[in-house]
Amino acid sequence: MDKPIFYAPDIAADAAAYTMNEDTSKYCIQVLRHENGDEVLLADGRGHRFHAVITDDNRKRCGVRITGCDTLPAPSPALRIAISFTKNASRIEWFLEKAAEIGIRTIIPLVSHRTEKEKIKAERLQNILVSAMLQSQQFYLPELLEPQPFDKVVNTNTDPQQLIAHCLPGEKREMIHHFQPGKDTIILIGPEGDFTPEEIQLALDKGFEPVSLGKNRLRTETAGMVAVTVMNMINTDSPD
Amino acid sequence: MDKPIFYAPDIAADAAAYTMNEDTSKYCIQVLRHENGDEVLLADGRGHRFHAVITDDNRKRCGVRITGCDTLPAPSPALRIAISFTKNASRIEWFLEKAAEIGIRTIIPLVSHRTEKEKIKAERLQNILVSAMLQSQQFYLPELLEPQPFDKVVNTNTDPQQLIAHCLPGEKREMIHHFQPGKDTIILIGPEGDFTPEEIQLALDKGFEPVSLGKNRLRTETAGMVAVTVMNMINTDSPD
Repeated sequence: MDKPIFYAPDIAADAAAYTMNEDTSKYCIQVLRHENGDEVLLADGRGHRFHAVITDDNRKRCGVRITGCDTLPAPSPALRIAISFTKNASRIEWFLEKAAEIGIRTIIPLVSHRTEKEKIKAERLQNILVSAMLQSQQFYLPELLEPQPFDKVVNTNTDPQQLIAHCLPGEKREMIHHFQPGKDTIILIGPEGDFTPEEIQLALDKGFEPVSLGKNRLRTETAGMVAVTVMNMINTDSPD
Repeated sequence: MDKPIFYAPDIAADAAAYTMNEDTSKYCIQVLRHENGDEVLLADGRGHRFHAVITDDNRKRCGVRITGCDTLPAPSPALRIAISFTKNASRIEWFLEKAAEIGIRTIIPLVSHRTEKEKIKAERLQNILVSAMLQSQQFYLPELLEPQPFDKVVNTNTDPQQLIAHCLPGEKREMIHHFQPGKDTIILIGPEGDFTPEEIQLALDKGFEPVSLGKNRLRTETAGMVAVTVMNMINTDSPD
């Protein structure tokens, strides 16, 4: 049985003991019914995996003793997605959950000309990312940036592989056949109604390569999910 | 601008006129504010694309005149997924929407040993599939079968490419590197808690090949979504 993993954002790398916050304590003790002596794992979201034993099964401030800590390698290459947030919050929340589960380093809420949602509920979204990290047994928390204008992302990003997915006519290649593994990558995903021709041209001028995500017209969050899946799967080595 | 597409499940292939049902009429006339003379498309979900003009913009029974009909080729190869439905209905509904958007021929609710949900709300799920088909501008409706026991699926399926995704140790290859395009395919996705070793062995004995869906532990609906994405993307030709 896998040991349960709990979030410990404020734990020091050399901690000998730790007290979970109230929400986590409640989940650990009251919901999952753990008790003194149970072995658990703690994740700080920065790659440290703490092995711990519950020493105080208090449902408001659960205490643990740290028995070991190892540092896991950061997922490589770095995969980033800049995506226009949808008006419907649940669609983008769903995307965040799935992207975190499958694997993403950085999520940039992209404010493009046709973006209808420019503000984000950072704390709520952060909680979704934490849950997805723990649920999928990862130890690195994806980074959710503040919303950024399209121009800024295109002008400042320096990843060696830069992609823009759009639905307008024009030369573009299927991402699955074009994407190169092993390279830090950013992909831009537009809003409902797509990027404007000017935005696409700006990105192309800056060296972004245009890609297609299959034959069907996908919703923004579906396109984002497909892009994250393709990037991760192509970067996964065969285990044998 | 793309013409709007409406669902006409009961239209005859040689129809000269058609009356939308009440829900569709309301959506077309009241929500989207179409009126007489507007051009629309109708999809029967069986590959016929009808070109039509609104002749009676009645919000309860919208009438159209058919001006043409073409038959689109069925997506090929046939991609099928047999997936254990999740206890949480919204998770599997989300999966159905995304699978239909990205592209799937057949969805089989799979009843395996650890499946917690054996009954499905067929009508509700059917409506989700229809919406996703229209939204992604497709003309074939994915087929949602009745729930089937694991043994039956494994024993009766005859697709030339048969895959089973599971998380147990054992020899398996990354789906992205192993999947062969151009072949009718079925993939089995297990419940939370995975297939039992006996189920996996039965599938292997019947010629199913074990595959992995990346490094992270994915929820059932995420695994299903990743599998559908990989199958579709690898089967998509480069447009150039």
